[in-house]
Amino acid sequence: MADSFAGSPALQAHLESLLPEDTRPQLRTSVIPSLLSAIADVSHTLRISQHVALAGSSNEFGDDQLNVDVSAEKHIRSALAGCAAVATASSEEDPVERSVGAARGRENGVGGERYTVAFDPLDGSSIIGPNWTVGTIVGVWDGETALGQSPREKQIAAILGVFGPRTTAVVAIRIPGSEPSCFELGLGGAGDGGTPPTWQLIRPNVQLARAPYKTRYFSPANLRSASEDPRYMSLVTERISKRYTLRYSGGLVPDVVHALCKGHGLYVSPVTAGSGAKLRKLYELLPVALIVECAGGKAVDSMDGRIILGEAPLGSTDERGGLVCGNEDEVEEAVSALLG
Amino acid sequence: MADSFAGSPALQAHLESLLPEDTRPQLRTSVIPSLLSAIADVSHTLRISQHVALAGSSNEFGDDQLNVDVSAEKHIRSALAGCAAVATASSEEDPVERSVGAARGRENGVGGERYTVAFDPLDGSSIIGPNWTVGTIVGVWDGETALGQSPREKQIAAILGVFGPRTTAVVAIRIPGSEPSCFELGLGGAGDGGTPPTWQLIRPNVQLARAPYKTRYFSPANLRSASEDPRYMSLVTERISKRYTLRYSGGLVPDVVHALCKGHGLYVSPVTAGSGAKLRKLYELLPVALIVECAGGKAVDSMDGRIILGEAPLGSTDERGGLVCGNEDEVEEAVSALLG
Repeated sequence: MADSFAGSPALQAHLESLLPEDTRPQLRTSVIPSLLSAIADVSHTLRISQHVALAGSSNEFGDDQLNVDVSAEKHIRSALAGCAAVATASSEEDPVERSVGAARGRENGVGGERYTVAFDPLDGSSIIGPNWTVGTIVGVWDGETALGQSPREKQIAAILGVFGPRTTAVVAIRIPGSEPSCFELGLGGAGDGGTPPTWQLIRPNVQLARAPYKTRYFSPANLRSASEDPRYMSLVTERISKRYTLRYSGGLVPDVVHALCKGHGLYVSPVTAGSGAKLRKLYELLPVALIVECAGGKAVDSMDGRIILGEAPLGSTDERGGLVCGNEDEVEEAVSALLG
Repeated sequence: MADSFAGSPALQAHLESLLPEDTRPQLRTSVIPSLLSAIADVSHTLRISQHVALAGSSNEFGDDQLNVDVSAEKHIRSALAGCAAVATASSEEDPVERSVGAARGRENGVGGERYTVAFDPLDGSSIIGPNWTVGTIVGVWDGETALGQSPREKQIAAILGVFGPRTTAVVAIRIPGSEPSCFELGLGGAGDGGTPPTWQLIRPNVQLARAPYKTRYFSPANLRSASEDPRYMSLVTERISKRYTLRYSGGLVPDVVHALCKGHGLYVSPVTAGSGAKLRKLYELLPVALIVECAGGKAVDSMDGRIILGEAPLGSTDERGGLVCGNEDEVEEAVSALLG
């Protein structure tokens, strides 16, 4: 796949600096490039899908599936099928780890590299109709399964694809023993004189800032649950009184990416008796937590205040939780208010 | 311009049904098509503008201008320059009504048609960086100025261009004596085998629903001001208690279009002593109000509770106000809570 990777020279050099020649060449030249190509394909499908209708099917979790969900799933599965080092994959739409075509029969992977990919092909279905920004979430795990593994040790990369006026992506890589990194890409060149879309390196170092902050943003998810949780209601009214700026799209990817781009943000998705835990750990919480940590922030489960990446190995693909993430001090203060 | 209008046959037929042959042919075949073409151009510029930097200039109102703002302004001005029936234009970036190239020397317009166009080329600058959906706002006025005219009689069309994963637009037309109409378009065909982008008719009849509502949405703008306005704070907490779903992007176009696409929404931008009136009547409030009214909703100035389109003629291009808009009963209830 290396030859067909449409990444700018600066992006290729950046990936080589993070993953030098002898370090995981399949991850650098095949897995990440293939996922980025698939994200470009999803963006193209969304762009031309003017009639966003229900596909008439529902996924394993009972959600309505939109036809663009189905296309996004196919684009990513098809990209992974060409990656010899990807052993298994599963998604929010088909949450069973299955072996991937190219890996079958290669029990030792390629040069010792074997990966598992877990993805949510299109997060934010409810805001596709009004044409708001939506995203794709991907986690890459070392080995042939994400189940029973230490999330902090084994989930080594994550990508958020962002489909808005532009197509962008935030990538995090954290190989045990190496420096973590979080960077932003933008898809350029599409449709200009026939040049193929190319991923450009926009910001080599995405970082959540440290206090004092110029502007403070907050994103209160599942706000209806504040009606039954006085601590959440008071967290919200206190942020209003402290003159935080509200930004809440209802899409996990755009809401988290807003904080990453502004350098500040507090995202809160509480779990209450009435509303229950909604966010899937494998497809949503763990990849987002890796991105946030690699940007210097903190991601905690709002159910119990535990660091998401420090939680016990997953027992199933359907485990769920809540989320408080963003700048470290903001997250700590919010968790105290919710659970303290 | 009629020949070069890239609108699908269904869209052309829809425009002809609203504006029959002898009714304002320049509006139908030149002004609206040119504005839609310009919106397609803005969308292309945004798509390829990966480095969204400050342009280094500021507009007349003192806002920082982004380079994409400057491009959007140019695309729309350039499209209007080709419309013989457009007499004058002004924008939020250059808020002085100036005569438009093609109209100079044609004091009687074309076949008696003379229009003034007022536009905000790119609304939502603060959310361009994180790649959230943004928009363009356009109002079309009968005659050679928008100043000193009855908004309800003279502002006869409005367009919201929506730049998200897709490019869409909501158009409202209300010619005195004719039925008002609000419809949604989507830009298709871009980049597919070299076919030029074509506007498709997606929904011929955009309507805000009537109670009872399946899901209720609310968008509290300028939420920081609730810290100094107990009535606004209580309006917000009451909507939370009534389990409204929060959707607030901070972009006026996506926030209003969300309500139009879902059939329900309450957008509230109050004016308080501390924060002042922010929304410009000519470039934001009046076009949005026409769209909302043509969809069967209500748009009121939160400063005084008056119907926006019923207000006195504009004395200047810089007049400002607040906004409460959405479904009629929701707006009335919110205005009572804020001002009652």
